[in-house]
Amino acid sequence: MTAPKAVVLVSGGLDSATVLAIAREQEFICHTLSFNYGQRHRVELQAAAEISRRMGAVEHKRITIDLGGFGGSALTDPSMAVPEASSGAIPITYVPARNTVFLSFALGWAEVLGAQDIFIGVNAVDYSGYPDCRPAFIKAFEHLAKLATCAGLEGRAFRIQAPLLHLSKAEIIREGMRLGIDYSRTISCYQADENGRACGVCDSCRFRKQGFWDAGVPDPTRYH
Amino acid sequence: MTAPKAVVLVSGGLDSATVLAIAREQEFICHTLSFNYGQRHRVELQAAAEISRRMGAVEHKRITIDLGGFGGSALTDPSMAVPEASSGAIPITYVPARNTVFLSFALGWAEVLGAQDIFIGVNAVDYSGYPDCRPAFIKAFEHLAKLATCAGLEGRAFRIQAPLLHLSKAEIIREGMRLGIDYSRTISCYQADENGRACGVCDSCRFRKQGFWDAGVPDPTRYH
Repeated sequence: MTAPKAVVLVSGGLDSATVLAIAREQEFICHTLSFNYGQRHRVELQAAAEISRRMGAVEHKRITIDLGGFGGSALTDPSMAVPEASSGAIPITYVPARNTVFLSFALGWAEVLGAQDIFIGVNAVDYSGYPDCRPAFIKAFEHLAKLATCAGLEGRAFRIQAPLLHLSKAEIIREGMRLGIDYSRTISCYQADENGRACGVCDSCRFRKQGFWDAGVPDPTRYH
Repeated sequence: MTAPKAVVLVSGGLDSATVLAIAREQEFICHTLSFNYGQRHRVELQAAAEISRRMGAVEHKRITIDLGGFGGSALTDPSMAVPEASSGAIPITYVPARNTVFLSFALGWAEVLGAQDIFIGVNAVDYSGYPDCRPAFIKAFEHLAKLATCAGLEGRAFRIQAPLLHLSKAEIIREGMRLGIDYSRTISCYQADENGRACGVCDSCRFRKQGFWDAGVPDPTRYH
């Protein structure tokens, strides 16, 4: 019997690298998918390719899409500044419908590959309050996936696997250390420079820094 | 009070042109969205732009995406032939997760625009049996849209408007004639030539031809 295939969304960041390691430990044949969506931190795409290669993905696809054309987010609009601290409300780094778009592409590819499992590194604990990181969103997409596809019509259920959903950042990091991930190769910063060095002050950097601290693990991030 | 905005998915074909006319009659300010997704019939994108302009859309965006990179469909894979007659099963012109991807982008744009309504020309009567043209799929996406967005969190419900869902092709054409659509400017053929002339034999041509016949309206389609 051959191992099952999975599509794994890989951004180049800490969370999705951990998800890829988890999928590999579960013996999935992993096809990784990244998006160039006009984000400021495009250096993360190089990290995504490297992580995919090092961690045993059989294939890595990078898709260029045009979310930036819609505007409305500090991650894709050069005229908006990335904030340095959370305001309590949903931050302007939210990209409208981003995870819906990403999962839709993953679903299309999963159907072509004959994969039932789609892995995504969303997290509803140490996160920025984005709506498309909540358990109810994941459930709703899983329901949609069955109705949206020929595979679903034929009785194949898709699983949206979000193994980090209920973990704190520190728990994610401890799991990744157990799995042997070299987190120095991952980039989480919303405004990393072209060499992949992190700013240390954006939301994403702050959650990550605190996570290493809480996990009692030296932070291998390269800051500028 | 200003009129509400809507995002209208426009392919360049007969169905979505009719949907745009319906949305305009309902006095929506229409922002139209088309996709270059590696389809064979790219001339339909010129038709989409022209239809948007003639029918009073305030803005037309064309997004290039990479569905063809996944393979698996005769509409995007040059090595697969477009079939000339239905086999009963779902045809190989099905593009995996296409409407899910299209609606995801429309949702992102709607959120940025502050629009609540997304119009799509899917039809579950005279169609090819694609799973993502069914009422249950539309309902599931509407549910997802609420959970996926900040707008949804704040209590804004999105409506996925599919006014053709339960109409026959002849009924769609009669509605379009009433609204003054010039269907000679629309392209439905899966393999139209570079001048927009239709093959007359693919699934999409056959449904369209039969529709004009059943509606008792002269078929303005240019065939090659």
